[in-house]
Amino acid sequence: MAFSEFRPLDENSLIEYIKATPSLSSKIVDNYDGLKIKEVGDGNLNFVYIIVGPSGSFVIKQALPYVRLIGESWPMTKERAYFEALALKQHGALCPEHVPEVYHFDRTMSLIGMRYLEPPHIILRNGLIAGIEYPLLAEHMSEYMAKTLFCTSLLYRSTTEHKRAVAEFCGNVELCRLTEQVVFSDPYKVSEYNRWTSPYLDRDAETVREDNLLKIEVAELKSKFCERAQALIHGDLHTNPEFAFYGPMGFDIGAFIGNLILAFFAQDGHAGQGNDRKWILKTIEDTWNLFHQKFTALWDEHKNGSGEADLPAIYNNTELQKLIQEKYMKELFHDTLGFGAAKMIRRIVGVAHVEDFESIKEANIRAHCEQRALELGKTLLKRRREFVSISEVISAMKHVQS
Amino acid sequence: MAFSEFRPLDENSLIEYIKATPSLSSKIVDNYDGLKIKEVGDGNLNFVYIIVGPSGSFVIKQALPYVRLIGESWPMTKERAYFEALALKQHGALCPEHVPEVYHFDRTMSLIGMRYLEPPHIILRNGLIAGIEYPLLAEHMSEYMAKTLFCTSLLYRSTTEHKRAVAEFCGNVELCRLTEQVVFSDPYKVSEYNRWTSPYLDRDAETVREDNLLKIEVAELKSKFCERAQALIHGDLHTNPEFAFYGPMGFDIGAFIGNLILAFFAQDGHAGQGNDRKWILKTIEDTWNLFHQKFTALWDEHKNGSGEADLPAIYNNTELQKLIQEKYMKELFHDTLGFGAAKMIRRIVGVAHVEDFESIKEANIRAHCEQRALELGKTLLKRRREFVSISEVISAMKHVQS
Repeated sequence: MAFSEFRPLDENSLIEYIKATPSLSSKIVDNYDGLKIKEVGDGNLNFVYIIVGPSGSFVIKQALPYVRLIGESWPMTKERAYFEALALKQHGALCPEHVPEVYHFDRTMSLIGMRYLEPPHIILRNGLIAGIEYPLLAEHMSEYMAKTLFCTSLLYRSTTEHKRAVAEFCGNVELCRLTEQVVFSDPYKVSEYNRWTSPYLDRDAETVREDNLLKIEVAELKSKFCERAQALIHGDLHTNPEFAFYGPMGFDIGAFIGNLILAFFAQDGHAGQGNDRKWILKTIEDTWNLFHQKFTALWDEHKNGSGEADLPAIYNNTELQKLIQEKYMKELFHDTLGFGAAKMIRRIVGVAHVEDFESIKEANIRAHCEQRALELGKTLLKRRREFVSISEVISAMKHVQS
Repeated sequence: MAFSEFRPLDENSLIEYIKATPSLSSKIVDNYDGLKIKEVGDGNLNFVYIIVGPSGSFVIKQALPYVRLIGESWPMTKERAYFEALALKQHGALCPEHVPEVYHFDRTMSLIGMRYLEPPHIILRNGLIAGIEYPLLAEHMSEYMAKTLFCTSLLYRSTTEHKRAVAEFCGNVELCRLTEQVVFSDPYKVSEYNRWTSPYLDRDAETVREDNLLKIEVAELKSKFCERAQALIHGDLHTNPEFAFYGPMGFDIGAFIGNLILAFFAQDGHAGQGNDRKWILKTIEDTWNLFHQKFTALWDEHKNGSGEADLPAIYNNTELQKLIQEKYMKELFHDTLGFGAAKMIRRIVGVAHVEDFESIKEANIRAHCEQRALELGKTLLKRRREFVSISEVISAMKHVQS
């Protein structure tokens, strides 16, 4: 450990820290000539530095004891870095091909050193905005979600392992509280933090706050988010897993699919670039279908393992095994749509917005895109149980968009 | 603390222990002349002593590191006493009028000293078998359940309090595992521990193990039991709360109502005593209806409190508040019927039976009573969502019984 007590790093003290930390200095072979350090934290919470030297590179992420987007007036435990490192390591062990390696963790400093994905890698959201197609996105994301969610659930784990892990991640309560507030509460009430594309969406935001059916449904999802320890979920499946805890699987799958839907509707604001948005529809469809396929394949493969939920001595015939999988996957599909919709709505009328829409300069065009996304989000949240397959979601998207 | 390390007590060492423990010796005013000690543990797990002296009385309960019913071949952490004492204290603070006071807890010895309810108090189950009517039973039990369940849920508590408590009770994992096995798993598969009134119920037990629909539904309830931290539940609402952890409320309400249903069907085997069973039907109906009334009254009373689930800024009109309560109570009613049914089934074809049936000497009469209870249990488990009110459950009971 480089420092004996917490202090926020800057670019100068960061070098000092690296020099004193073998697991980091070895990554750049102790070569500080021409070392480049860049703060890139465009997120809402943390400071993120990219360190690139002639002989290697890594990323440093430090949590400060408040919400960066809001400032010191919104305190937030820096212990979140501990849960992020823990989740990265556990998810990394389950799916090393799609989780960045953790090189170093310092609990005192709330600091993680991890792999830097060098150019041409860019943040997915920026690629989506630029109209780049990612033919392997559904394949990779479904792989990551199927492996991490299945293997941390009671379909794979014993009750003893599960309860121990649930107890540990209960410690990440402040991040859960933050999600409860910004996803499930604030968008549905008057809150100083809410914002939207005004004046175009003034009436839309008000309509959200007056929609009884919508509020009933979001209460059910919030209760599931708070109470159901189904698997170690990422908790914010577009950035980094400091939100990780034991929660409902649909929250992760929904976060990813909901963000793809937002990207789809934002394309109208980036139309000058002549982007083809069909691949986004295909990616949404493939993501769910591949996830379904991979998840049930893992289930079949491990059905004689130590998982507590589906004991082979009880679920002892093919028909019954099929029935129980169908029931589980149907509920997960509806959870996915509900949580995905809640994430869409909060990105339009809540505190934290997405670059997909923010980067549309003309407010009236941005508002038009947002209104369509909001309309679909409300439909999905209120009527999710009526959707039988992901292709019906695609149809609804096309219908709203046309 | 009387002893520095764990040892199972007997009647002699118990006196030595009491003498060295002021919180116990003071209860009998240090008067050991004519002190009577009686081991009364008729349960499946622990040793229970009643200590009565000329100047006072109390109960000592000690957990041994195995399941008493099975023996040392089924190990079971004695740490369960810690969770029992914790739950007794927490439930006692919320509903002191219906929870026995804890005088003393010794974690090393896994030993609880608590209030002895002197005669004419007897164990409720024995009173039910004897045909005694308890006119206040529904009133008292609904009061206890409404207060303890509401006040340990997110309808009353903040996320911070809730997650801290959930994490602590995750430590009671061995008792949860035991319930998972004996309630949700063993009755639905071949298990060395299962037993039933043979040969009369051989085919019935087999039918339970071959009923796909029943197994699908019990999987859903098991998942809810394992994953949903809704409130601090008693966990075995007929004996003592060593099974306490954060689980679904319906597990407690269902346990109590399910046991009343068993008592109802057992009356045919005790008919010679001319018992009136109508009061049991009324008690079942009153229990749910009074619980519903008390629980929603608490909800209304505390709707501006610190509970996270139902924020007044969102659920801000009477109609909406009514809708959300109706939805919550409907799910809780169906959970109650499902868990109650699972508890009934396991008492007929699983490892631990109830004295209501066991005390019926003639096996063919016992089997007849058990078959009716089993039939109703299966119907409730598979078709619980079709029941709209508790009076429909009463009708179904009468139908099966006639």
